[in-house]
Amino acid sequence: MHKPLLVLPVPGLPEIRAGDDLARLILASAAKHRLRLHDGDILVVAQKAVSKAEGRVYDRAGVEATPFAREMAAYTGHTPEYMELVLRSSRRIVRMANGLVIAQTRHGFVMANSGVDSSNAGGEDRMVLLPEDPDASARGIRDAIEAVTGRTVAVIISDTFGRPWRRGQVNLAVGIAGMEPILDYRGREDNDGRTMKATRIAVADELCSAAELVSGKTRRLPVAIIRGYRFDPAPGTTEDLVRDEESDLFK
Amino acid sequence: MHKPLLVLPVPGLPEIRAGDDLARLILASAAKHRLRLHDGDILVVAQKAVSKAEGRVYDRAGVEATPFAREMAAYTGHTPEYMELVLRSSRRIVRMANGLVIAQTRHGFVMANSGVDSSNAGGEDRMVLLPEDPDASARGIRDAIEAVTGRTVAVIISDTFGRPWRRGQVNLAVGIAGMEPILDYRGREDNDGRTMKATRIAVADELCSAAELVSGKTRRLPVAIIRGYRFDPAPGTTEDLVRDEESDLFK
Repeated sequence: MHKPLLVLPVPGLPEIRAGDDLARLILASAAKHRLRLHDGDILVVAQKAVSKAEGRVYDRAGVEATPFAREMAAYTGHTPEYMELVLRSSRRIVRMANGLVIAQTRHGFVMANSGVDSSNAGGEDRMVLLPEDPDASARGIRDAIEAVTGRTVAVIISDTFGRPWRRGQVNLAVGIAGMEPILDYRGREDNDGRTMKATRIAVADELCSAAELVSGKTRRLPVAIIRGYRFDPAPGTTEDLVRDEESDLFK
Repeated sequence: MHKPLLVLPVPGLPEIRAGDDLARLILASAAKHRLRLHDGDILVVAQKAVSKAEGRVYDRAGVEATPFAREMAAYTGHTPEYMELVLRSSRRIVRMANGLVIAQTRHGFVMANSGVDSSNAGGEDRMVLLPEDPDASARGIRDAIEAVTGRTVAVIISDTFGRPWRRGQVNLAVGIAGMEPILDYRGREDNDGRTMKATRIAVADELCSAAELVSGKTRRLPVAIIRGYRFDPAPGTTEDLVRDEESDLFK
């Protein structure tokens, strides 16, 4: 009746390269370690693996920095090319202070450096951007897995976020397919029979945080399978996780 | 080598009352369902169960509201007594808008209504406050479990938080004992051999989010055991999760 939740890391994935079929690589690694997908499994995939497969990796030599990017580079200590990619990825700059840039990505996520990353990028001068459309990336992986295995799963793409008010980073969702990112308890009754007013749980974020616990930044484990979490199949979009400015009282 | 993470709900806990020995109730429920604690297990306990055991439940009839609490009540639509408890729990008001109050608790956490809650409180006019010292609450449970079972575990007390920038709530840590809330990767090398600069993961928050997935707001499952997450034993304090104002660029 009360089944445990399992979070299973998928070991043995190779370094991902542009053009790789990530779904097939995941399935091959899973099979090699006797991990078989079940209907209702949730795959949480690190953004960097997805971005690399989609060729969202830029070399410094191939990026031309605008004068504004050069100004930002002088301020942050990053390279002009890095700041150029941050600007191209951004809808707006939320804050610049202490040499750091917090920006809102074109998708609407608020992240340090708009999610542009140079750690684990595969070389000193290489930089990885978020997928252009992470929900579409998640759908692609989900559909490929269903086509190959016949299993209906959900796929969530996760990335690492700093947070206001709280120290330390956590993994949260940037792309989703196969389920809603938010579980809505509004209108249901609590244990006392009172209607609950405002409880909408961002389960996609919680699933990414759970997956991070087995993924580890310094080991190569960009994929986890979460088994035992019940959800209703739905298309889903991470747009539902982005607050509109006006409703954001927590800022 | 790559062990799964297990998140096990502890079923069958009774409604918690002031003075209850929560550690013993948890152990009794676990034993009844053949759940035995292991060394290195992490118990995630919902704040409300801890607060109820500690008698942090107030009845409207026993609370006298100040004039300012009455003003706030008119603004928010809550009762004056509820707003009085919010004020008593707060270090400062972060924002008041749209009939909502975001406040910083005396411990430093930024939460809607300073974490004062009237859902699942055990009655229409009852309100539950956060524990006075949630780290001490966690230590008490941890020590009692060690005394009874001889097992060394970590205990995290979790509560539900709204977040800036992102829709939906997630469970995060408000108390901890037996481990550090943040895992610090700074200085370690990434897969390319570069020193990682700024990766500090708030694992206590991720563990609370993982536990929420099996806890469910409308079922009575306030405790989860997380097994398979390796950590170094340490005293730990959730003070490390509270950002100081000056360093908070994400706001």
